[in-house]
Amino acid sequence: MLSKLSIDQDRFREDFEELADFGATPDGGVDRPALSPAHLKARQWFLGKAESAGLETCIDGAGNHSAILRQPGAERTLLLGSHLDSVPNGGRFDGALGVAAALEVLRTVKEAGLQPPANLEAIDFTDEESRYIAYWGSRALTGQLQAGDLRDALDEREDLKVLISSAGLDQHEIVSCSRDPRDLVGYVELHIEQGPRLAQNGVDLGIVTSIAGIWSYRFDFLGRRDHAGTTPVTSRLDAGLGASSFALASHAMLLAEFPDCVANVGDMVFDPGAQNVVPGKVSVQYEFRCPDEMLGAAFEKNVRAKALDEALRFGLQLDTVLVGHSQSTQLDARIQEEIRTTVDAMGLSAMKIASGAGHDAQVMAGFTPSGLIFVPSVAGASHSPKESSRWQDCVNGANALLRLALKLAKG
Amino acid sequence: MLSKLSIDQDRFREDFEELADFGATPDGGVDRPALSPAHLKARQWFLGKAESAGLETCIDGAGNHSAILRQPGAERTLLLGSHLDSVPNGGRFDGALGVAAALEVLRTVKEAGLQPPANLEAIDFTDEESRYIAYWGSRALTGQLQAGDLRDALDEREDLKVLISSAGLDQHEIVSCSRDPRDLVGYVELHIEQGPRLAQNGVDLGIVTSIAGIWSYRFDFLGRRDHAGTTPVTSRLDAGLGASSFALASHAMLLAEFPDCVANVGDMVFDPGAQNVVPGKVSVQYEFRCPDEMLGAAFEKNVRAKALDEALRFGLQLDTVLVGHSQSTQLDARIQEEIRTTVDAMGLSAMKIASGAGHDAQVMAGFTPSGLIFVPSVAGASHSPKESSRWQDCVNGANALLRLALKLAKG
Repeated sequence: MLSKLSIDQDRFREDFEELADFGATPDGGVDRPALSPAHLKARQWFLGKAESAGLETCIDGAGNHSAILRQPGAERTLLLGSHLDSVPNGGRFDGALGVAAALEVLRTVKEAGLQPPANLEAIDFTDEESRYIAYWGSRALTGQLQAGDLRDALDEREDLKVLISSAGLDQHEIVSCSRDPRDLVGYVELHIEQGPRLAQNGVDLGIVTSIAGIWSYRFDFLGRRDHAGTTPVTSRLDAGLGASSFALASHAMLLAEFPDCVANVGDMVFDPGAQNVVPGKVSVQYEFRCPDEMLGAAFEKNVRAKALDEALRFGLQLDTVLVGHSQSTQLDARIQEEIRTTVDAMGLSAMKIASGAGHDAQVMAGFTPSGLIFVPSVAGASHSPKESSRWQDCVNGANALLRLALKLAKG
Repeated sequence: MLSKLSIDQDRFREDFEELADFGATPDGGVDRPALSPAHLKARQWFLGKAESAGLETCIDGAGNHSAILRQPGAERTLLLGSHLDSVPNGGRFDGALGVAAALEVLRTVKEAGLQPPANLEAIDFTDEESRYIAYWGSRALTGQLQAGDLRDALDEREDLKVLISSAGLDQHEIVSCSRDPRDLVGYVELHIEQGPRLAQNGVDLGIVTSIAGIWSYRFDFLGRRDHAGTTPVTSRLDAGLGASSFALASHAMLLAEFPDCVANVGDMVFDPGAQNVVPGKVSVQYEFRCPDEMLGAAFEKNVRAKALDEALRFGLQLDTVLVGHSQSTQLDARIQEEIRTTVDAMGLSAMKIASGAGHDAQVMAGFTPSGLIFVPSVAGASHSPKESSRWQDCVNGANALLRLALKLAKG
């Protein structure tokens, strides 16, 4: 019988459209950075909808907003969620789809009069897009957010203190609101793919196996400033040539040796950046992502050597700075299997896929069994007003989430 | 007898050191941008020194400062000069050496009681470093500065209006102070090379044959912004790869086909310039310099084609913008010969050299016979506090200027 239960498509769509109004941009996207007025309004809307549906609501110390379908006698809770913040000038699907779906799942279960053996909680995590603190909400919930992280963020961003107050939060409670993993059954998130692979493969849904580790580097190529009109070309130490050569060489290396990884030269800053001065220094912002740590370690070794090779080839010095590393995460194998059987039973197609983007699921995975379902993205557009998914795919995703939740709630 | 006349080395050095105090920076350079307080003080110092020496002084409508050794009955004037402004955080030799030398030449001639058949005028041109208006002073003097140029500069730089007043100038007189070329014998400038070639060749002085033409381009490589974690590397249109490839390909082209030209990728601006976003647009600031227009035209054709090739190779579009072009200038052949015989007679060595940097001499050359003498630069450092020349080379340059002036004054 459960496999026939479906969400209310029209209500789900209406919710989704209403959400897209908060911070709506003229080009059809949303601009709803964490703790911005538009974001706070969207969160308020979420709690209001939950209350109207007769669900419990709750805001924890980190600002995570929840709607709860409590079951009499149930000791544990299954979390379903995502986030309502967006990147600046982002799209309407990223995050919002998962929160709207989780809310709809709770309402559907409640209206059907089902009494799963676990509480169901739809959670909207704070600052998934890491405007102020990377994965603020999920890290706080899992006890991974330290007082020092908050202090650093407050030091770095002048506006944060005011924003925390205006969001009704208390600095001291942000890092002290962690939960006990024994109270949780698990965590499942529905999210758009943010890439083109599901659509390219003509697949209905994606079963996420892992979330890529991200390695962020800054490579400073150091040469010598010279007058670009008077210094013979052969006497120069041109930092721009080393940086350019590195961009091409590292790209070739990736294609030849690391087909399962991605990498990006996101920025090069030329110093002094004047047309008539040979650049004395070029800072290259580089990141790469790999599905597991072993592969990432091999990539790291090779790309560092590549940067040094290219610097030396142009007579330059190199400063190599590891800016950050977030570990790759394997998602729960049992949940992956449950997603597969759920999707099969719905008569839909699915494929396993590694996520190149980060999600709260990667934070949750070390804390409670966690899963992630991807909805295909049209043309793979992401973090852009062009972001889009076919509505039927979104409905399929929400129904899969519903059926999966009912299975997982059994423990 | 004239060939034995020499400047007063000690006085020349004292003047040069005093000048280096205006806008002195802790690292031994000077920060004396056009019309800055330090620049105005240096100009005031120059007039004061001239008056103390019994020379006439004059400030024209464009702010050019002059010391004049007037000869009874002489109808024409030989100009000797350079500039007292510097680039931000520049060196103490660029410009100042030529002004100090010109002043010293006038004093030496006056003290020796010589009466050359032309007036001698030591001139300090306004804004040679083109902070506000490229070659402001020499263009005004030669009638090449239009009211529109001044309007554009006033529109672009908010501070200019105030600076013009504080320098005691009248906007309306700036473009109306041109001279009659029939009143001039010629123009000669002493300047540091700003490059390493004279020093590398162990030569005492440089006889400048031409001043390179400069072509400034902006190449915008246009791709598509994508999420750098979720977009497969082979599906991207990465503007950074096109720009990097162009930097290397244009460099290789220069080395292989245009050994007499120089070029520079001075800046690349990545848009949006975020680590996790594939750059959708990279703007490349590019300039090249060639000693004559024919060669420049060939370079231009080839480098534009190269940029397009590299854009297409990565599936990108290209916007090509010619930002500016200053024509190459041939300096007066007779003056070059006179410099040669002067330097030979002094028992010094000299070589012909094309200037890669711009100078007021290039503006003056179309107006009156013009010459330029280079003093070797230690290690070729330029537009930098590290800029330096051996003092004996500076003295040689000033003495060559003295003897050349006495020859040219004969008409």
